[in-house]
Amino acid sequence: MQQRKGDPFGTHRVIEPEGVLPQPAWRLDSVSPLYANECLIDVERLNIDSASFVQIKEACEHDDAKVKEMIMKIISDRGKMHNPVTGSGGMLIGKVSQIGVEFPASDLQVGDQVATLVSLTLTPLLVEEIQHVNMNNGQISIKGKAILFASCPFAILPDDLPESVSLAALDVCGAPAQVARLVKPSDTVVVLGAGGKSGLLSLAVAWQAAGEQGKVIAIESNPAACEVIRELGIAHEVQSVNAKQPLAVKEMVEGLTDGGLADITVNCVNVPDTELSSILATRDGGTVYYFSTAVKFTAAALGAEGAGKDVQMMIGNGYAPGHADLTLQLLRDHPALKDIFYQRYQA
Amino acid sequence: MQQRKGDPFGTHRVIEPEGVLPQPAWRLDSVSPLYANECLIDVERLNIDSASFVQIKEACEHDDAKVKEMIMKIISDRGKMHNPVTGSGGMLIGKVSQIGVEFPASDLQVGDQVATLVSLTLTPLLVEEIQHVNMNNGQISIKGKAILFASCPFAILPDDLPESVSLAALDVCGAPAQVARLVKPSDTVVVLGAGGKSGLLSLAVAWQAAGEQGKVIAIESNPAACEVIRELGIAHEVQSVNAKQPLAVKEMVEGLTDGGLADITVNCVNVPDTELSSILATRDGGTVYYFSTAVKFTAAALGAEGAGKDVQMMIGNGYAPGHADLTLQLLRDHPALKDIFYQRYQA
Repeated sequence: MQQRKGDPFGTHRVIEPEGVLPQPAWRLDSVSPLYANECLIDVERLNIDSASFVQIKEACEHDDAKVKEMIMKIISDRGKMHNPVTGSGGMLIGKVSQIGVEFPASDLQVGDQVATLVSLTLTPLLVEEIQHVNMNNGQISIKGKAILFASCPFAILPDDLPESVSLAALDVCGAPAQVARLVKPSDTVVVLGAGGKSGLLSLAVAWQAAGEQGKVIAIESNPAACEVIRELGIAHEVQSVNAKQPLAVKEMVEGLTDGGLADITVNCVNVPDTELSSILATRDGGTVYYFSTAVKFTAAALGAEGAGKDVQMMIGNGYAPGHADLTLQLLRDHPALKDIFYQRYQA
Repeated sequence: MQQRKGDPFGTHRVIEPEGVLPQPAWRLDSVSPLYANECLIDVERLNIDSASFVQIKEACEHDDAKVKEMIMKIISDRGKMHNPVTGSGGMLIGKVSQIGVEFPASDLQVGDQVATLVSLTLTPLLVEEIQHVNMNNGQISIKGKAILFASCPFAILPDDLPESVSLAALDVCGAPAQVARLVKPSDTVVVLGAGGKSGLLSLAVAWQAAGEQGKVIAIESNPAACEVIRELGIAHEVQSVNAKQPLAVKEMVEGLTDGGLADITVNCVNVPDTELSSILATRDGGTVYYFSTAVKFTAAALGAEGAGKDVQMMIGNGYAPGHADLTLQLLRDHPALKDIFYQRYQA
């Protein structure tokens, strides 16, 4: 039997609205048989995006049975794990169960353990059962099927790291890869939300890239997470400030930089309303890199205008060539950072 | 009587929630007397942001009495013209009626005709009466009072252009100023939503900056607006394509660039769901500059990741030093473009 070939971007799986791509679509078809240029995955684990998981836990009053139910409902309503409130998703790992004859990945084999490097918001997903929800780290064990389109990056999981650790790191691998491009020697870098995984990976890269003449400032609301950063030794300054308080953040950064502010501010905070803190922490002519999916476009655009701040503001792109390898190598190069990932994410 | 001094960013006028800046605030105090570092304006005209005005008109079924009512309700609920659906505002013009003794603008005088260069989403506004709504261009004649904070840029209106024309151009003056910084000689530039005012101003700048070896491609859904662009002679290619159809946009740009795509794509579309069109129109390593406030952060971030596109994505900053002068000068330098602004916006 001849298999049909689908669109490389997956538009053939969009149910509604018509004519859009899978990411903005309300609902995807996760049921139809595999197309010739797709790959089918037996899903083992979802890693829910941090902004999304925080929102779901709060809506469910931290009751894990309700969290299971809400996640199941989102997936069955939309054919994908696309949180309608935060607009964000996450990623998954599983075993390759079927490879379409025209799927563009010559080295991939049935049975390979892979992580998808595209958001769950555009990945067709069918769930039979949610086995376990880890309420601490947002990793969900499930039994289900997912589909990879021809344009979607993925990574074969390495043998030297536990799956759950690779998954946690790869979920945010765009952040360290983009920070590596942005930070130049001698730069002053502020990382907001520095204690989460994207924050820690960004710090590690900034510490290396800014070099001996640079200054890396970690801002993190949770004092215990601040202690972790201090022990890792990947920041010159570690301060416990709430990133939702722009004036407090601005004053702190002013104080630590003799009024010079940051050349580059990386926003990794997983709660809303931190756009202005990022803007006010940054010098005129500097760059704000928004990695958090809790960021609102208009709050950033109008906030900078309203404060009369001439800063470049960038939307975090989860894709950059080589981002998966760079991120996994970062863990191997920083044993203490790797230990933190083991503590938090090893299943 | 000694006047109190307020925060330069205006936090003293925030009613709820506490501790945030005026832009993200739900409600501002537009009633309390002037602080020593504020300036009071007798407002004559609001220029509603295009994304906001389109949304309001649709919600009101294009009935101008309902539009009046809805705008009045937003302003009285929030103490500012901050559309809760689109999150955007616009700007205003009026006459300076009172200048606080510590307001930082030595050359400003009572009676000066000014335009605020910050969004209405952070400008305390009290409206007595809405006199007229121009359903075509979103300019609203009102009687009311607005407050300028110490950090807020503004422009004294020039004598050689009608107020309504200056207002329309200054409302989007961030766009041409940022495009002027981004576009280099020989660049291929795509402007989406090229027929609106920010699109036309961006085209005019790109045409100049890309030079003889460059290529400027205007994409605009409205065929009549395409004709206007052709007559202005500020684009090498003008195509009528719906920016909500990413694959159609991608194919069009591929065809016009021998598959090379754009170095820089400027998004000026005033409707949602055009993030992916911008991404797919742009080459790997290129830049997407999102000026439209209808853009959703997560749709852009996750869309680029999902398509595996290595593009820089920038959030339009409405402020850049000299942006007002650059924009008004652009009109003076392009008489035909100035004529279009007269036709559309002269009161």
